[in-house]
Amino acid sequence: MFMEKLLYTGKAKQMWQTEDPEVLRVVYLDQATALNGKQKDHFAGKGQAAKAISDLVFGYLIDHGIETHFIKQLSPTEDLVKKCEMVPLEFVTRNVVAGHFASRYGLAEGQVLAAPVEETFYKSDQLDDPFINNSAAVGLQLATPAELDRMWDLCRQVNALLTPLFAKAGMQLVDFKLEFGRLGDGHIVLADEFSPDNCRLWDTATKDHLDKDVYRRHLADLTTTYETVFTRLQAALKEEA
Amino acid sequence: MFMEKLLYTGKAKQMWQTEDPEVLRVVYLDQATALNGKQKDHFAGKGQAAKAISDLVFGYLIDHGIETHFIKQLSPTEDLVKKCEMVPLEFVTRNVVAGHFASRYGLAEGQVLAAPVEETFYKSDQLDDPFINNSAAVGLQLATPAELDRMWDLCRQVNALLTPLFAKAGMQLVDFKLEFGRLGDGHIVLADEFSPDNCRLWDTATKDHLDKDVYRRHLADLTTTYETVFTRLQAALKEEA
Repeated sequence: MFMEKLLYTGKAKQMWQTEDPEVLRVVYLDQATALNGKQKDHFAGKGQAAKAISDLVFGYLIDHGIETHFIKQLSPTEDLVKKCEMVPLEFVTRNVVAGHFASRYGLAEGQVLAAPVEETFYKSDQLDDPFINNSAAVGLQLATPAELDRMWDLCRQVNALLTPLFAKAGMQLVDFKLEFGRLGDGHIVLADEFSPDNCRLWDTATKDHLDKDVYRRHLADLTTTYETVFTRLQAALKEEA
Repeated sequence: MFMEKLLYTGKAKQMWQTEDPEVLRVVYLDQATALNGKQKDHFAGKGQAAKAISDLVFGYLIDHGIETHFIKQLSPTEDLVKKCEMVPLEFVTRNVVAGHFASRYGLAEGQVLAAPVEETFYKSDQLDDPFINNSAAVGLQLATPAELDRMWDLCRQVNALLTPLFAKAGMQLVDFKLEFGRLGDGHIVLADEFSPDNCRLWDTATKDHLDKDVYRRHLADLTTTYETVFTRLQAALKEEA
């Protein structure tokens, strides 16, 4: 009998082997981390709430032509996804000044940027995910120039699709992080997830935080916050349909 | 009578007003700093040695069509230069892995990069000169995309001119930092200096450091090292002429 093997445990997800070598099972965990893993806590229902949001967003992106690793949902906390070789980069798009970007450049949180700022980070726990630019990513052979062009183009498409969608749901898409993978033939698709673990969402009217910052900054319950985001997003999508 | 006013004291230079509002006097100091100014020492003859090298390099670049702020030499430690509005960015070109770049990405010093890596830093003592990318430099309105294109193009021309020149002088141009200024009409020219304060030079054969790392790492006398670089460079230029 085939025994599933745990391939990887991340900050909020596990990746499991399946009988099909081209397919992985993703399990969303009831866990949140901050400060690159130095802070870590358990939240009942958080995995399901994060995955519910990510499923809505990925579904919306797929409906609008974005290629992703998603195959199908297995359960409220599990998906099947295409196996990818992950590109070891995080692609961050910033519409509004917040978080590290504010402190690094001495800016006030909340300033709307004239044009979105795009930043890449090198995924390495050992090195604390350092900031890297396109030139160094190519120099260190983490991605080719053509791959970087495709991934940044996908980031721009995602921003153009999601900023108005979240606005309709009463939320400002402040910034977000995407990750990409190479399929067996090298073709690049959107991978990982899109949840408030990896983006900043502010209530349009009150500017309340509706993302992992409620955990990082001890502002509100994480699961309840994510359930609010899900409910609002679901309503906006129904209105759109 | 006109009284000169000190406009700026940097890590190794002072900028003075002159009677002509479009012209500044630069004075090279017998001083070196490291760790963003936290370490600071006096070295007799260092200002003159650094300026002698910079004059040779700027002369060579000007002869090969690079536009700079340089007007003329006043004394062995003083130049007249065109007044510029300095772009608050440092443009670093890396041919070989060294220094911060090695530690940031967990690489071994000395690895030759497949293609030069280009990095920008935001000049701000208060923020400790943080790493910034082109996208954020535009987002923070530090430079326009067209200006960044021109400055990176000048960096590539300088690298293409100086790498073989230093090779002829028995030195490997490991990395270097350039700064640029806008003239009154907005036209961008190379400014600041080119000396072993702002680049890494390794002896081609022995890999000995022939730059400010001898001070940062307590390896050799700074002034003597700079005098060696000057002598070698002068000989290579004579051979070329």
